[in-house]
Amino acid sequence: MKEYNVAILGATGAVGMRMIDQLANSTVPVKNIKLLASKRSAGKKMKFKGQEVTVEEATPESFDGVDLVLASAGGAASKKFLPEAVKRGAVCVDNTSAFRMDPEVPLVVPEVNVDQLKNHKGIIANPNCSTIQMVVALEPVFKKYGLKQIVVSTYQAASGAGQSALNEFYQQAQDYLDGKEMKSTILPTGSDKKHYPLAFNLLPQIDVFEDYGYTHEEWKMIHETKKIMLNDMDAKDIKVTATCVRVPVPISHGESVYFEVADKSATAEDIKAAIRDADGVTLQDDPDHQVYPQPLTAEGHRETFVGRIRPDLENEGAFHLWVVADNLLKGAAWNTVENAERLVEQDLVHVPEDHYEAK
Amino acid sequence: MKEYNVAILGATGAVGMRMIDQLANSTVPVKNIKLLASKRSAGKKMKFKGQEVTVEEATPESFDGVDLVLASAGGAASKKFLPEAVKRGAVCVDNTSAFRMDPEVPLVVPEVNVDQLKNHKGIIANPNCSTIQMVVALEPVFKKYGLKQIVVSTYQAASGAGQSALNEFYQQAQDYLDGKEMKSTILPTGSDKKHYPLAFNLLPQIDVFEDYGYTHEEWKMIHETKKIMLNDMDAKDIKVTATCVRVPVPISHGESVYFEVADKSATAEDIKAAIRDADGVTLQDDPDHQVYPQPLTAEGHRETFVGRIRPDLENEGAFHLWVVADNLLKGAAWNTVENAERLVEQDLVHVPEDHYEAK
Repeated sequence: MKEYNVAILGATGAVGMRMIDQLANSTVPVKNIKLLASKRSAGKKMKFKGQEVTVEEATPESFDGVDLVLASAGGAASKKFLPEAVKRGAVCVDNTSAFRMDPEVPLVVPEVNVDQLKNHKGIIANPNCSTIQMVVALEPVFKKYGLKQIVVSTYQAASGAGQSALNEFYQQAQDYLDGKEMKSTILPTGSDKKHYPLAFNLLPQIDVFEDYGYTHEEWKMIHETKKIMLNDMDAKDIKVTATCVRVPVPISHGESVYFEVADKSATAEDIKAAIRDADGVTLQDDPDHQVYPQPLTAEGHRETFVGRIRPDLENEGAFHLWVVADNLLKGAAWNTVENAERLVEQDLVHVPEDHYEAK
Repeated sequence: MKEYNVAILGATGAVGMRMIDQLANSTVPVKNIKLLASKRSAGKKMKFKGQEVTVEEATPESFDGVDLVLASAGGAASKKFLPEAVKRGAVCVDNTSAFRMDPEVPLVVPEVNVDQLKNHKGIIANPNCSTIQMVVALEPVFKKYGLKQIVVSTYQAASGAGQSALNEFYQQAQDYLDGKEMKSTILPTGSDKKHYPLAFNLLPQIDVFEDYGYTHEEWKMIHETKKIMLNDMDAKDIKVTATCVRVPVPISHGESVYFEVADKSATAEDIKAAIRDADGVTLQDDPDHQVYPQPLTAEGHRETFVGRIRPDLENEGAFHLWVVADNLLKGAAWNTVENAERLVEQDLVHVPEDHYEAK
């Protein structure tokens, strides 16, 4: 069996640590593992399948002899290093937003558009965490009944903003309970000017604001959904709109999704059946026994959990669902490793001659 | 000036305590105040305008000589005592769900349908907390541009389930931070079988489940909105649908509201202007300066805060807004006292001869 030299870029972050664990528990045959991070984290000892591995500082030369890169060290690091890795013959699955909207880069959620993997030119992008769980839930509905419109309101966990935001959130929670003033230096987003406490609060801002009063996170949910489901970030076939809110939860995003199908004959039972039979989804939908997805029960799992499926009683063909997934696993580390598994299975761990070049 | 003998039923609860404070800071001229509660709380000393008042056990006779009752001691207590109070000549503003859907009882949010107060037969109902803030935000839009559809996803605070649920939530939060197991005996709702932790979690169940997979809270938002805005709980003029989620926030509900107006010429700026000019609402909508409503900043205020107003870029006439209000004040105690203020101003603190009778 062919084995691969794998590098993890950003190995010490919240997602990177989980990539190591997900990779160790995957079907990817790993010959050698390289853990890469910034200079600050170099020298740190980590474990892969019980073996100690020393974290190295990422440089272009780090990728010599590497077959497969899993990246989650931020958009700037991906932009800097992944074209270098591709040049050296490594196929990269990138969890940052750096290349998602690049028409040369497939944006892949295996349950939805695994067929796009074969078009890669060295880089495959992993979608935003909030987008992934929604498309996993809706794809089986789309396939069977078509989709006309999606209106989503998110309930996103602190860890989506990174390990330091998560640490800040825990500190805020303890300070609040101790009657102390909460300090905020990162949330809602490190890249904006003002900072507010998330603990015991709600922040209707994820990422920075853009045109028409939408945040970049909302923009991502709209355009990534179209690119994944329709292979065109500006497709009009499905209308998508979103409101993204950060909630005081450490891990696992919740989403209240309202959607309208094309086939008006579809019932809530049909929608449930379609989702129940789909890959990567677990239906948790039993109101009589108070069964529905919750962040605390989704945490640590690879699946996407769906429940609260019900019809809009006044709008034929429209339904609600509630979807929860571990944003660090299915929303990031696991989807990346799952893409790597599919690349290996389809023997696609090769960089083509007309490979991706830095622009 | 006429002065009134006022009784507060459920004076020791989370809402009752705030009713005392809101009444003390209202325009209602209070001659004498009576604080009523269950036997368990009788004898407790509380303060009204700096004067010590002893809590009494509520009995039918407690209402002899009372002009105005503000009630928030649970639906069973309201059903038992309010018809007795009405019989004795007291006008009752009830914050429980006991009489909300009774066609003989006006359901009033002063900013929306203060004209309904004159139709009272002794009882005026206060709507559900999550409904109140939504209709306050949408009424100015409805008046100017009409409304075709409302799709709301709520982010509701623990205190909406009462003081004991709030205490349970705080204990869970501390236990979680201490690495201990969280205990749940009330949330998501005391009246259902299973209980789950709310701290660091999301519970997509508020109140019990009913038909078609909707919770009673969602049912309330749909039918109360129609009764308040259209004076008919089953009106079809505005389609309303809802998903209600309890979030780990102590006080103040958030709501992501998607709505479609009838007048397609309306712009986001028009919607903002309509809301900015309305009573009881404060517009907090300045993305450039990261200004938007948050529970922590809404807490303790009587107003409803609205922001994140923006158009659905693919669906003409459809918009989003984000609304936050203190669920214990505008959502409960203040709306009750505000109704009392309007009753006094309009000289409606009289029980008519064909008054409400227990059914």
